[in-house]
Amino acid sequence: MKSLTEYLSFNTKERRELINITPKVAEIVRQSGIKEGLCLVNAMHITASVFINDDEPGLHRDFLQWLEKLAPYSRTAYNHNLTGEDNGDAHLKRTVMGREVLVAVTDGRLDFGPWEQIFYGEFDGRRNKRVLVKVVGE
Amino acid sequence: MKSLTEYLSFNTKERRELINITPKVAEIVRQSGIKEGLCLVNAMHITASVFINDDEPGLHRDFLQWLEKLAPYSRTAYNHNLTGEDNGDAHLKRTVMGREVLVAVTDGRLDFGPWEQIFYGEFDGRRNKRVLVKVVGE
Amino acid sequence: MKSLTEYLSFNTKERRELINITPKVAEIVRQSGIKEGLCLVNAMHITASVFINDDEPGLHRDFLQWLEKLAPYSRTAYNHNLTGEDNGDAHLKRTVMGREVLVAVTDGRLDFGPWEQIFYGEFDGRRNKRVLVKVVGE
Repeated sequence: MKSLTEYLSFNTKERRELINITPKVAEIVRQSGIKEGLCLVNAMHITASVFINDDEPGLHRDFLQWLEKLAPYSRTAYNHNLTGEDNGDAHLKRTVMGREVLVAVTDGRLDFGPWEQIFYGEFDGRRNKRVLVKVVGE
Repeated sequence: MKSLTEYLSFNTKERRELINITPKVAEIVRQSGIKEGLCLVNAMHITASVFINDDEPGLHRDFLQWLEKLAPYSRTAYNHNLTGEDNGDAHLKRTVMGREVLVAVTDGRLDFGPWEQIFYGEFDGRRNKRVLVKVVGE
Repeated sequence: MKSLTEYLSFNTKERRELINITPKVAEIVRQSGIKEGLCLVNAMHITASVFINDDEPGLHRDFLQWLEKLAPYSRTAYNHNLTGEDNGDAHLKRTVMGREVLVAVTDGRLDFGPWEQIFYGEFDGRRNKRVLVKVVGE
């Protein structure tokens, strides 16, 4: 079994951003030389997500508006913010969108459907964050 | 390390359907000959889910009614639908239910609790869709 | 490829509890002797979750209050409860929080960001439940 582990770094300008990281993940799979296996991509921070969906700007606005309805930003409404943080909402938003994706590697490539793209979802940005990419297989 | 990759095809009659795919996944695990490993099952389309829960028709009605509350169907309420689609809601519903499951393969079988069953969740059906099943291990 | 499969058991005092299981999972990874690979941790029951987030009591109260808003407990509001169960809400709560996590094992350890901790989320407790931990790699 072979494996390759890499870390992507982010420091977004906006508090909330959705960033297409598919080309970076595909390049790591290529570098791994692995033909058949699995590729794990996960946020290493608990107010950020990695998820798969469509690279369509309108949909991304829908995601952010919808998350604001399901888990609205508030300085005062979350117990977590009594710690001095103001990111209680970001922990919940990340929970809806998910921490990680696992993608099949088949014949040396990410085995994707026609519209699948991998995104980093930042919900408490403007600070250094990392994403782990690990490819295992043969 | 051995691996086997298969693709399941769906074209549902209804726009929204939940379909038990456990027997098909179990058969692929059997065919793989893998005794110890992992089995990834993921939707290859971004308005569909693969998830694990109970095979109980009342619960399935609850899921569909609940998703309609969390992310209601609307032609006009989603930015995504300005592209000409009417499936903005389906992208959000799939996000709640999840894209993928990873199941342990132990002693040649899906290592499940007493009620765990794998479902395909379709939220924008009546068209061809696929699910990827990949078993890796030894 | 090596693998190790273990099962954790729970019988919570409260109906709903969030329990940090990181030390137990880390010990299983150590026992496996695996240096590079993947560690799957999943609930084996469909009214329970395994998820990764922060070990902060205020946030845990936020999670439970938020889940009660998204999927409130009710004896009568869920079709599933016509079976004689009263845990329809617990199936939905678990869906929001997720069934499983997959963690990279790098250099013999869980490859975590600074605040990542693994939790068992119980939403219909006071009965025996299990969590599966499977480590695969080399």
